[in-house]
Amino acid sequence: MNQDDLKKLVGQKAVEFIEDGMVVGLGTGSTVKFMVDALGKRVKDENLSIVGVSTSIRTEEQAKSLGIPVKSVDEVDHIDLTIDGADEIDDHFQGIKGGGAAHLFEKIVAINSTKNMWIVDESKMVHTLGKFPLPVEVIPYGSHQLFKKLAAKGLNPEFRTVDGKNVLTDSKNFVIDLHLGEITDPAGLQDYLAKQVGVVEQGLFLDCVNTVIVGRQDGPEVLDARPDTFTIK
Amino acid sequence: MNQDDLKKLVGQKAVEFIEDGMVVGLGTGSTVKFMVDALGKRVKDENLSIVGVSTSIRTEEQAKSLGIPVKSVDEVDHIDLTIDGADEIDDHFQGIKGGGAAHLFEKIVAINSTKNMWIVDESKMVHTLGKFPLPVEVIPYGSHQLFKKLAAKGLNPEFRTVDGKNVLTDSKNFVIDLHLGEITDPAGLQDYLAKQVGVVEQGLFLDCVNTVIVGRQDGPEVLDARPDTFTIK
Repeated sequence: MNQDDLKKLVGQKAVEFIEDGMVVGLGTGSTVKFMVDALGKRVKDENLSIVGVSTSIRTEEQAKSLGIPVKSVDEVDHIDLTIDGADEIDDHFQGIKGGGAAHLFEKIVAINSTKNMWIVDESKMVHTLGKFPLPVEVIPYGSHQLFKKLAAKGLNPEFRTVDGKNVLTDSKNFVIDLHLGEITDPAGLQDYLAKQVGVVEQGLFLDCVNTVIVGRQDGPEVLDARPDTFTIK
Repeated sequence: MNQDDLKKLVGQKAVEFIEDGMVVGLGTGSTVKFMVDALGKRVKDENLSIVGVSTSIRTEEQAKSLGIPVKSVDEVDHIDLTIDGADEIDDHFQGIKGGGAAHLFEKIVAINSTKNMWIVDESKMVHTLGKFPLPVEVIPYGSHQLFKKLAAKGLNPEFRTVDGKNVLTDSKNFVIDLHLGEITDPAGLQDYLAKQVGVVEQGLFLDCVNTVIVGRQDGPEVLDARPDTFTIK
């Protein structure tokens, strides 16, 4: 099976966890896209009554086009389960997200969810985080000064661009990717970045996910990451 | 003298510290407005060659109208001195800013300045911070969930509104004011807020200001707050 086949199968597996009446956070990314397709089919075929909570404009548009009602995170009392992708998941089920520049809204939805599930193909499973560049969403004003500070600290920053222009997030901010190779102290890095003026949010999702579904060649594998509810501090 | 007279005199006093060739951060607010007027007069009368660095659209427009060249914080190598107002300054020269909803850009400019000066009328000098509500700039998406969390923690949040609509900052974010009465642990509160997803920046400026000019009834008083350069972490 190719990578898209694996993503499709985990997307289909994930929606089996969705029950009638649930409020479901809908992540962003290529694997989530397959999941939303599968969810749209269940909503149609089984006349499921669910509410989706959006993490990006593109997911919201896809969900609505499939007849899934979508609300903002501020319009719901709670979110039962959020299903999202991830760019890297390590041996301790810590993750990096933000390859699609949507990690701010994804984290806002994640911390307001009772349970979180990540769906990935097996290439995303790693021993140590950091080979995937860590996305940092930053306020454009002052971002070049912040860039110099991150470079001086040895964090190998790079502005994310498309056609020579800075990528803009849904909040009209820039993204700086940190090329770290290996993140030996994710919690310490999270604390450092949280304190930097101009940093809106970074892509480390620590102590967050409850369940991971990995697309393997012999089928989706469901892993219990942690039993407790979400506890990003 | 009334409050405006005091503000005008400290504004005029502050520009005495500006030397030819300096890069000067220009804050935001009613006291700064008087300072920028006085600076414009010096630039014109003495043909001073200075560059202003903007903290808000309104200050930038005022400075340009007076013939002061203005650059963004990202277009300069360094800032020699930033002159800004403050909403409260305590006995240890810690401050609250953001009454004008400009504290994000003000802080970005402040941390990139070699020296910082605050100019205030005497009503802003307090023993303990917190009577002035602490402004917190937040991402609109998820802000109602964040509000509930801050309320549950006893921080007495209130959305800042005008005519029933949320105030928008220059970055198109909302402002939540925390009505605290007294802030007994500013550093702890700063750390807590920095970790909250959706908080862009809050209005505590700790270990920041080098010089304070206070507008007293008998004239401006210049206070050395701390000798070292700015060290917000």
